[in-house]
Amino acid sequence: MSDLRVALAQVNPTVGDIAGNRELVVEAIGRARSAGAGLVVFPELVLAGYPPEDLLLRPGFICDCRMALDSLLPETEGLTAVVGFPEGDEDGLFNSAAVIADRRLAGVYRKAELPNYGVFDEKRYFTAGTAPLFLEAGGRRIMVTICEDIWVPGSRVEAWAVAARPDMVVNLSASPFHAGKAGSRLDTLRRFAGAAGAPVCYCNVVGGQDELVFDGGSMVMSPSGAVMAEARRFCEDLLVAEFHGDGVGQGGGGCGRREEGLTAIGEIRAALVLGTRDFIRKNGFSRAVLGLSGGIDSALVAVLAVEALGAENVTAVTMPSEFTSSATLADARRLATNLDIELITVPIHGPYGAHLEALRTHWGGEPGLAGENLQARVRGNILMALSNARGWLVLTTGNKSETAVGYCTLYGDTAGGFAVIKDLFKRTVYELSEEINRTAGRELIPRSIIERAPTAELRPDQKDEDSLPPYRVLDPILKAYVEDERTVDEIVAMGFDPRVVTETVRLVDRSEFKRRQSPPGVKITPKAFGRDRRLPVTNRYRPTAGG
Amino acid sequence: MSDLRVALAQVNPTVGDIAGNRELVVEAIGRARSAGAGLVVFPELVLAGYPPEDLLLRPGFICDCRMALDSLLPETEGLTAVVGFPEGDEDGLFNSAAVIADRRLAGVYRKAELPNYGVFDEKRYFTAGTAPLFLEAGGRRIMVTICEDIWVPGSRVEAWAVAARPDMVVNLSASPFHAGKAGSRLDTLRRFAGAAGAPVCYCNVVGGQDELVFDGGSMVMSPSGAVMAEARRFCEDLLVAEFHGDGVGQGGGGCGRREEGLTAIGEIRAALVLGTRDFIRKNGFSRAVLGLSGGIDSALVAVLAVEALGAENVTAVTMPSEFTSSATLADARRLATNLDIELITVPIHGPYGAHLEALRTHWGGEPGLAGENLQARVRGNILMALSNARGWLVLTTGNKSETAVGYCTLYGDTAGGFAVIKDLFKRTVYELSEEINRTAGRELIPRSIIERAPTAELRPDQKDEDSLPPYRVLDPILKAYVEDERTVDEIVAMGFDPRVVTETVRLVDRSEFKRRQSPPGVKITPKAFGRDRRLPVTNRYRPTAGG
Repeated sequence: MSDLRVALAQVNPTVGDIAGNRELVVEAIGRARSAGAGLVVFPELVLAGYPPEDLLLRPGFICDCRMALDSLLPETEGLTAVVGFPEGDEDGLFNSAAVIADRRLAGVYRKAELPNYGVFDEKRYFTAGTAPLFLEAGGRRIMVTICEDIWVPGSRVEAWAVAARPDMVVNLSASPFHAGKAGSRLDTLRRFAGAAGAPVCYCNVVGGQDELVFDGGSMVMSPSGAVMAEARRFCEDLLVAEFHGDGVGQGGGGCGRREEGLTAIGEIRAALVLGTRDFIRKNGFSRAVLGLSGGIDSALVAVLAVEALGAENVTAVTMPSEFTSSATLADARRLATNLDIELITVPIHGPYGAHLEALRTHWGGEPGLAGENLQARVRGNILMALSNARGWLVLTTGNKSETAVGYCTLYGDTAGGFAVIKDLFKRTVYELSEEINRTAGRELIPRSIIERAPTAELRPDQKDEDSLPPYRVLDPILKAYVEDERTVDEIVAMGFDPRVVTETVRLVDRSEFKRRQSPPGVKITPKAFGRDRRLPVTNRYRPTAGG
Repeated sequence: MSDLRVALAQVNPTVGDIAGNRELVVEAIGRARSAGAGLVVFPELVLAGYPPEDLLLRPGFICDCRMALDSLLPETEGLTAVVGFPEGDEDGLFNSAAVIADRRLAGVYRKAELPNYGVFDEKRYFTAGTAPLFLEAGGRRIMVTICEDIWVPGSRVEAWAVAARPDMVVNLSASPFHAGKAGSRLDTLRRFAGAAGAPVCYCNVVGGQDELVFDGGSMVMSPSGAVMAEARRFCEDLLVAEFHGDGVGQGGGGCGRREEGLTAIGEIRAALVLGTRDFIRKNGFSRAVLGLSGGIDSALVAVLAVEALGAENVTAVTMPSEFTSSATLADARRLATNLDIELITVPIHGPYGAHLEALRTHWGGEPGLAGENLQARVRGNILMALSNARGWLVLTTGNKSETAVGYCTLYGDTAGGFAVIKDLFKRTVYELSEEINRTAGRELIPRSIIERAPTAELRPDQKDEDSLPPYRVLDPILKAYVEDERTVDEIVAMGFDPRVVTETVRLVDRSEFKRRQSPPGVKITPKAFGRDRRLPVTNRYRPTAGG
């Protein structure tokens, strides 16, 4: 075996932008060539972006991807490129990897293991491949695999690898982030590299796509389970690894290097920033607007928005009512000053009062909760009016605890284009806020915001805990029910009051209609609301204790 | 072979209501027994309701379904019942049919063909069965199949039937309606009955579930392709068919009978009424409210709401602005009178003006389109305030043409719980309105409403055609693009202006974010917006003519 430099092109494509994605590929091929690479590997479905969803059902889209692939052939002089694309033929549609060797299409591998759980729907679109593919480079026999192919213990792909004893495995991935995923990814790569008895060159995509964030983290895993080279996470990178004989080293030509590990909360922060930035920019926006209440949720979203877009691209709006305390208003102003963002004040007394007056004879009693919702909807109107008039995308500020139990107003505080922290339980909101102040080295988020008892300020002296259990009780119940699919009895057995558990579960179930009409946001847990968790709106299943 | 009466229990279960669904089964068993039936067949997954979606991932839900099934055994004295339920065991989860013969579980069939396209996600949940099941009743060998099993030409299920030559086939279905589905269902049943050389007793579920309507239409298809007995459509029914020797007749004990066929537009009307009624009632509401503009869309929704709920359960709200003409307002009043429904008038001048004033210094120019959207959102606020205060479900009135191109205001006219006509193109709105007047024998919907040029009345003299192509051009372009996945070039080749096609397609693509946050509504076409058509919000694919 001669020496071989392998480049893993961890790029950030955009779903549907076939021409743009092709340009990313061409540019990375050029950089890989400059770095002396003989083989350059791209992520799964890089030409289409991932996941393309029902674009895959359009013959025109498949045809356009194929034309883009064919046009790449002349770009591969002197090296081999492995490029993910959707491949249609008379046998069906395949999630494929084209091997282009020195301007010639040398082969196509078709993904054999199609995930159809969690956020994945690949069996809706693809037919499974049934044969392995090996390419030759640097005197090596290299097995091509795609994402899920290496994740299923005992799969036929694993059997192919065990039987073939390849010199190397490449894996094209589009593997979305959630907290803790990096560990299971390492385990998976170790297991497969060990089974194959060969290093695995893992190329993951990076970037945000609607609810999903892909964190990159491309790497070379040795057969003995050591990480030999590693790309950066949460940004584009070109990782070049040099293989000589049986050894491997990180190549000189690439920009990749072994990173200091991110902390668990640091990973979440990076995912939220990347997911927010990509959603906004890939949808053609450059600026965002959000309501700043003086509470911790909107404070955190403001900080993340500034990290994603820059302070000059974020506008905050305070919308005080008669129930807004001067302390929360002062906190909102202080935060805006700390972040150096534009702050607009639009009091809601006028429009709120005018609504009350217009509806005066129609309430059928006191406005009550309907009046509270109306305040939130007037605020939603104001943010959306600014969005429509100024071209700013509205960020919503609801967290996972509120979203779960429906402690929010549909078309009010849920109105907007992107829900930045919708997958963070309230306790994670606190944890991340503390982390932000720690890394800032100052109270970027004023201490008074962090320490104020949570309140929606929709009536005098209102506190979240008037309506909900304390978050230290609520959050673990929600995690057990929503993420872990535990029964009420199992949650009670964890030590919680049966009535509290039953009531919490009831609130989650009956709020599905609100979540269905809420904007997408970054998935950071193993089970987020959205495509990850698909429940009917019409649903009379009511789990109870001892039921 | 002795004589055998077979009862097809076309019931209307509710997703998640395991106890209630079990009651439906027990009651139908009793009626089947009274009718002298030896075999009673229920729809697919009747104990769970269909589709249960991610309820299927909860071990507690599967366990509760199993307990309900077990509790049915004592109810089957003297007959055989075939009951659909989700079956979990160590090999996975199965979409199964239990054969309960005279209080004993005689066997379980596991669905072999799992649909995973369109609105279906069965591979997300289920493992495919691998063996046929035959039950014995009335001296006959009867093959059990479930829905998709008989829809796939050349499937292994068909091969089992061909090889086994059963005396009869039963099929448990949950097969959703769309216009034209009845014809393909007949073709399917004819093909399978012919292949099996045996009559097929087809039991479909009936009722609405979120976006889907199941139309019933259970029937007995003879091996020669004749419909021997047929249940009513769009309502519950118990069809009893008597088999003697090789012949079959409709039994005397049942209430089923061969129906006069519904017209194409009559089917759509029945589907909308059933879907709306079931969504509202199964979600615990009894009354609905809608905004009545004097236009045809809201007029049609008002009529359908009255058919679904009764006039006493529908409230209409007119919300005039300075741009509302006296003619449209008078039409709205006339319609409310014709329908005998409550009419509330809430002018929006006050709240709209107060919003303009509050935002006065923040528009960055004239309000323009943002001001138009604001009017729609004030109306949305008013309807939601009434909903929150009075417990009425808000019906939205947008049609498929508007929904497709985003000619609507998010959180404005899209605000509500159920979008009754979201899957009707504008031309179908006219067709159904004419049908309603024809069957009413009078101008229930005033002629002036039908003949007025469509307008949103958000600025002086506004007409839909100022912003959109005429509906006679727009609707066929939309159908080709949205339902038939045609490319721009193919649509142009149908005879449309390339610029109009390209612009229409652009509008559809960039409105996905609005559809994602809009309420569910009844699917009546082969491809509705919703779970039927899953496109990313972030999507830069822009098909163009000659592109």
